[in-house]
Amino acid sequence: MPQKPSIPKGTRDFSPSEVAKRSHIVSVIKRHFETFGFQPIETPSFENSETLLGKYGEEGDRLIFKILNSGDFISKVDDITYSSKNSISLAPKITEKALRYDLTVPFARYVVMHQNEIDFPFKRYQIQPVWRADRPQKGRFREFYQCDADVVGANSLLQEVEFVQLYDAVFTDLGLSGCTIKLNNRKVLSGIAEVIGAKHLLVDFTVALDKLDKIGAIKVKEEMAAKGISESAIKKAAPLFEMSGNSQEQLEQLKDLLVESEIGMKGVGELQQIITLINDLGIKSSKLEVDVTLARGLNYYTGAIFEVSAPEGVNMGSIGGGGRYDDLTGIFGLKDVSGVGISFGLDRIYLVIEELGLFPEEVSQSLDVLCLNFGDEEAKEALRLITKMRKGGVKVDLYPTAAKMQKQMKYANKRNIPMVIFLGKEELERKEFVVKDMRTGEQHVAPLNIEGPWLNWNF
Amino acid sequence: MPQKPSIPKGTRDFSPSEVAKRSHIVSVIKRHFETFGFQPIETPSFENSETLLGKYGEEGDRLIFKILNSGDFISKVDDITYSSKNSISLAPKITEKALRYDLTVPFARYVVMHQNEIDFPFKRYQIQPVWRADRPQKGRFREFYQCDADVVGANSLLQEVEFVQLYDAVFTDLGLSGCTIKLNNRKVLSGIAEVIGAKHLLVDFTVALDKLDKIGAIKVKEEMAAKGISESAIKKAAPLFEMSGNSQEQLEQLKDLLVESEIGMKGVGELQQIITLINDLGIKSSKLEVDVTLARGLNYYTGAIFEVSAPEGVNMGSIGGGGRYDDLTGIFGLKDVSGVGISFGLDRIYLVIEELGLFPEEVSQSLDVLCLNFGDEEAKEALRLITKMRKGGVKVDLYPTAAKMQKQMKYANKRNIPMVIFLGKEELERKEFVVKDMRTGEQHVAPLNIEGPWLNWNF
Repeated sequence: MPQKPSIPKGTRDFSPSEVAKRSHIVSVIKRHFETFGFQPIETPSFENSETLLGKYGEEGDRLIFKILNSGDFISKVDDITYSSKNSISLAPKITEKALRYDLTVPFARYVVMHQNEIDFPFKRYQIQPVWRADRPQKGRFREFYQCDADVVGANSLLQEVEFVQLYDAVFTDLGLSGCTIKLNNRKVLSGIAEVIGAKHLLVDFTVALDKLDKIGAIKVKEEMAAKGISESAIKKAAPLFEMSGNSQEQLEQLKDLLVESEIGMKGVGELQQIITLINDLGIKSSKLEVDVTLARGLNYYTGAIFEVSAPEGVNMGSIGGGGRYDDLTGIFGLKDVSGVGISFGLDRIYLVIEELGLFPEEVSQSLDVLCLNFGDEEAKEALRLITKMRKGGVKVDLYPTAAKMQKQMKYANKRNIPMVIFLGKEELERKEFVVKDMRTGEQHVAPLNIEGPWLNWNF
Repeated sequence: MPQKPSIPKGTRDFSPSEVAKRSHIVSVIKRHFETFGFQPIETPSFENSETLLGKYGEEGDRLIFKILNSGDFISKVDDITYSSKNSISLAPKITEKALRYDLTVPFARYVVMHQNEIDFPFKRYQIQPVWRADRPQKGRFREFYQCDADVVGANSLLQEVEFVQLYDAVFTDLGLSGCTIKLNNRKVLSGIAEVIGAKHLLVDFTVALDKLDKIGAIKVKEEMAAKGISESAIKKAAPLFEMSGNSQEQLEQLKDLLVESEIGMKGVGELQQIITLINDLGIKSSKLEVDVTLARGLNYYTGAIFEVSAPEGVNMGSIGGGGRYDDLTGIFGLKDVSGVGISFGLDRIYLVIEELGLFPEEVSQSLDVLCLNFGDEEAKEALRLITKMRKGGVKVDLYPTAAKMQKQMKYANKRNIPMVIFLGKEELERKEFVVKDMRTGEQHVAPLNIEGPWLNWNF
């Protein structure tokens, strides 16, 4: 009884048209990464467990896929551990490797291991899958791609400016006009916590503030109070709940609020520089907005914080994000290396482009021309023609058998192949063939000894 | 005490120039896969264990990486199994998923699962990593890429002809002129075993014959005798050890030898058709040779067998191989689907191209232009120029800080950046900048308001 095949939950097969669409997005991202001076690296799919464990918090450790040691793995477990029959103490004895959980920790490991070969500042990009043992749900998978660009060893705010330009260039090129690039700064959040007198509750404060969009001001204030932030502190933070106007106007409001906080004013100054430069250099199709409620991954970030949301009208979380983290490589022993980076959310970007119908038609066109098969003699001649066309870069195929015309035409239709070549007995005798445009029904006759270019055929 | 980072044995980090070179090879392969009408699919990195186990023999099962179940994996192991403390019986209780071992089995699983969406004949390609817990050694890794193209649902020999053309097109385009595409047919091997009276010892016979290249005729005959093949049988097989001449001449010798064997003559007929068609269509830079000693993966293949060896003078095993297997999807319950496919050995192809110095220089050029940084005011103007250039597709970057000129120039040199832009105080005042060609030392002055095209700059 043969197995009924299936794949593990949270994983996906990608069909030809899905691969083509995903490749389209990746190639746009890659092209811009490269014009912006980023260089590609790749790291192994699995790392030594100790490289990954302890880097993503307790929850993260649980979500890391561990690889069973090969061979007689159990004989290396001591009897005491074994007799406990406890998963937590047993796991590290029978697994030494684990699947990559994100691209940031492997990148930090790479930088430290290869520090002597790297010319700093090092701008790297990396587009590879990562794996998380998360509960699968809509839009959340156990295997998914990350597309990251980071700079290490450069403190200048010009990097942040470039990342805004990079987001704008990629999303514009993908047809996603009107994305909002939200910008915040960890120092501003620290400054706010300071001036309202809730410095020790910075994380609780920002976690609550982060929800302003979703749950509204009243509920955010309730949550802050529940976390022990005093009424007077919440009152002092009032301007945050009423920020209005464009980025410049919001910056002015922040300056008023933060005038007493050195770190806060430093943050405002950084935001100001970035916004001034972007206004000066121009932006293609995105909007750049200051958003003081933006906190994502607060524990990492020490400076700028980015997040991109899809064009209005599309219901989707963030499609990109990132920020500056001052000590990326410290965990592996290389101190004082500042990093700043952004990430593109491939799966969500795919869904947004699909929803808006913005994939160019030619992306999923797998074949330009199908040559019908009328029998051995004709097929031989067809193969000669096809060989020439392929040399000219045309995606062309011969139907493999002399099946009924109806079947062959049905195949061409189902695969949406725009052009079909007829090379039957009569055409062979006249040393000709017929090209039919399947979209218009138009037909042309051409001599068999035709040479390229094939462009005027509308391929 | 920070960890000294390392990566698991048998895995690799790829530096920017390595990724660039690998991408070059992959993009050539991909381009030809597509002009030949193959469509890309992707399958998950891990499959359910039962999809993979039992498909690659006992040795294969041992080399498959298994993924530890998440959560409290050990509580699901019954006490009897647990008390045995036996790795072989324990492993299937604590692992449900395993890393892909090759691309063929996942492809077969894909075809069966998606049979109702697929328009047959289905020509698919797949370029993804696979993992094997093999002992790492030179050129053998625990994580490596496979590049496979297969056709399912087409019995015509035209497929075999196309695969020869595909190999030739790819290797020619990679600059590897003079590769040898070796061709054999399982039916010929069966026929030989039949006519010499060693039908029941087919596998032993071909495994020994396969070594003719390496150990010579005497040792091969010794091995055959040791495996129980009779002296008279070995004597009858004598022509095999003395095959000579071009493919056509070898085919004639085979016809003489196999005249009594129906299956053998069928195999010779197939070889003949492929060779005649290829001679007729022409071949670019490879040599096509019949090689009756070629047996690779005999247990799969039922018809054509391919193998490619690197140009003469390069010491490297095969850089590609494949063949026809008549029942690819039967293991998953879909009968009578014939498949034929080939694979490109990315790592070995890389080594061959590297050894012959055939990577185009521009492949590893990560940056076209570096703009030096003379301070905030100048950098601002430089960023404006860079923004224009990037829009025109130039890979250009600004040095992130106003470091000493010497340091910036050293960075440009080390990274082999061919062009450098100077935009200092004086240039800024004159609304100009200077471009220096680092290879020739030549310098040009250009106005800041210059617009593309940038081609005449030799980018």
